[in-house]
Amino acid sequence: MWRMRWQTLGLTAVSVGLALETLGFLVGWLRQHLRRRHRPPRREVLFFPSQVTCTEALLNAQRQGGPPEAACLCPLPHGESSLSRLLQYVLSAHSSLELCLFAFSNPQLGRAVHLLHQQGVRVRVVTDCDYMALNGSQIGRLRKAGIQVRHDQGAGYMHHKFAIVDKKMLITGSLNWTTQAIQNNRENVLIVEDEEYVRLFLEEFERIWEEFNPVNYTFFPQRK
Amino acid sequence: MWRMRWQTLGLTAVSVGLALETLGFLVGWLRQHLRRRHRPPRREVLFFPSQVTCTEALLNAQRQGGPPEAACLCPLPHGESSLSRLLQYVLSAHSSLELCLFAFSNPQLGRAVHLLHQQGVRVRVVTDCDYMALNGSQIGRLRKAGIQVRHDQGAGYMHHKFAIVDKKMLITGSLNWTTQAIQNNRENVLIVEDEEYVRLFLEEFERIWEEFNPVNYTFFPQRK
Repeated sequence: MWRMRWQTLGLTAVSVGLALETLGFLVGWLRQHLRRRHRPPRREVLFFPSQVTCTEALLNAQRQGGPPEAACLCPLPHGESSLSRLLQYVLSAHSSLELCLFAFSNPQLGRAVHLLHQQGVRVRVVTDCDYMALNGSQIGRLRKAGIQVRHDQGAGYMHHKFAIVDKKMLITGSLNWTTQAIQNNRENVLIVEDEEYVRLFLEEFERIWEEFNPVNYTFFPQRK
Repeated sequence: MWRMRWQTLGLTAVSVGLALETLGFLVGWLRQHLRRRHRPPRREVLFFPSQVTCTEALLNAQRQGGPPEAACLCPLPHGESSLSRLLQYVLSAHSSLELCLFAFSNPQLGRAVHLLHQQGVRVRVVTDCDYMALNGSQIGRLRKAGIQVRHDQGAGYMHHKFAIVDKKMLITGSLNWTTQAIQNNRENVLIVEDEEYVRLFLEEFERIWEEFNPVNYTFFPQRK
């Protein structure tokens, strides 16, 4: 008789415990989800030239999928800079990254894009044909890594300098992704999380992506 | 007796008429004022290359201070284009125009800026020293017209391409104001009426304006 009661009591306690645990998990998940959904849209302007700072911690953390590891010991300053902010926004991609860049030679940004590709982010790159084969260009490296790249055929420049992260965040401005520009030029980059602007730039990207499809190249000899 | 009554009646009618007239004027002014204050902020993205359209009507209307005059008879199309939209936004300036442009050689945009200066808009231009003396640059023309222009001293490029209209509207993107870029390149220009973005770009303009002040030029011989 007493044993039965103790058993029932034990089972009830376990059930209540499990229910509370589940409830706690659900509330936590919901709060996190709502916080992510309802955080204010990102709005920032980055001005360049950027201070030269160490970005190793950022890139290593991305590679290891964790928080930044122990401080790097190189002699560069380790604070935030316009370049590190830009890198963080690019590295925040989880599912897709569209790049539409006149010139792309900065090694840190190149490594960031490469890492995202390795981690399963769908990366597509559009660039200008005149600049993609220059010394230091990242385009060849990205192609070798298996990233899809398309380019114009030389009539006018593909002069855009924008990126779209997860089809939600637009990164656009005057900055070509070159170290020369990042460290020496007066430049601006807008970070905009706004459905309308993102939609318009994504449509432009898709237009260009189709137009630059290699099946449309006219410099290949026509099949007979 | 009757004459007095008629006189009073007449005076009353005139007073009522005047009051109604004044009221009508005030209501009209208020409606117009409120509409201007409460119209939604402008948000637009212009993509280039722009169709080549005739912009004479726009520029002539600005010169004459009225609505577009009778249609121009030139063989160009007369509809809207990205260039005509950009011109309209620039020409909407009433009090001030800050230009921060790497390269500025398009004649239509040059005429627009010149007209605004003639009409009393305070125009200030910042540009890059390497490009301002090139063939076709508008910078010399604007300077001759009495517009203040400042430029960098050659360390890195002044690579911005933005304009601020009446300290309220930001025009920024990848587009240099050259006919080559307008007619041939893939480019974008954002039109943003947003206090925060405008403030940040205005602060950047003022920083550059002070930094490029001719009293700071180091290529002049030092006085002893």
